[in-house]
Amino acid sequence: MALIRNIDESELAPVQMEGVSGAKMAVMIGRQDSAPHFALRQFTVDPGGYTPQHMHDYEHEVFIVSGSGTILLEGARHPIRGGDVIYVPANEEHQFRSDESGTEPLRFLCLVPVEQNCGGPVPGS
Amino acid sequence: MALIRNIDESELAPVQMEGVSGAKMAVMIGRQDSAPHFALRQFTVDPGGYTPQHMHDYEHEVFIVSGSGTILLEGARHPIRGGDVIYVPANEEHQFRSDESGTEPLRFLCLVPVEQNCGGPVPGS
Repeated sequence: MALIRNIDESELAPVQMEGVSGAKMAVMIGRQDSAPHFALRQFTVDPGGYTPQHMHDYEHEVFIVSGSGTILLEGARHPIRGGDVIYVPANEEHQFRSDESGTEPLRFLCLVPVEQNCGGPVPGS
Repeated sequence: MALIRNIDESELAPVQMEGVSGAKMAVMIGRQDSAPHFALRQFTVDPGGYTPQHMHDYEHEVFIVSGSGTILLEGARHPIRGGDVIYVPANEEHQFRSDESGTEPLRFLCLVPVEQNCGGPVPGS
């Protein structure tokens, strides 16, 4: 079924995962909506917070909505800002950090395939 | 390979397709970047312009970046605005329109799977 949902009106839940600080997530379109190929999730990361420094065998496609921070990618930290589109290939270590001096959270969309390993669900899809 | 590209710094090309007016597109992440599952495209639609009223056998996941307009979905026109996330299931007729009275283009991201029909490329992926 079609849907229209605004990111300002969705309820975000804290990301409960080792190595995470001040991050929240809402699945905007996912498996529960019968999305057949990929899921669209919204994240916020409070100033000074971060997502886990990790890698996995599926890719991310990311859009930075607002706020500022850095991404660890290919072994270096890169500044990120609103309007940035980021491709994180599978098996590439990465981490998002929200600027400590920021006045608003780093807010981004992060898309993942819904399946990995021949049909297994991707976490958070 | 990882990449970071800003939507403000990408070159958009007019969408050459019947039933389209004032629409431009840039593939931000796609098959050319070796995206394995889905492609992220940026669209702008000038005030009064529109995308084709059509359907196809793959889904869209959409994020409205800025501007205002309407989407035809499930037989009705719905207002859309910045921050909206839209799921258009496969085989569902749809069309985006940018408000005639708008002062800026309707700007959105539209994601599609890169493959359909057992491996055939999705157009514009």
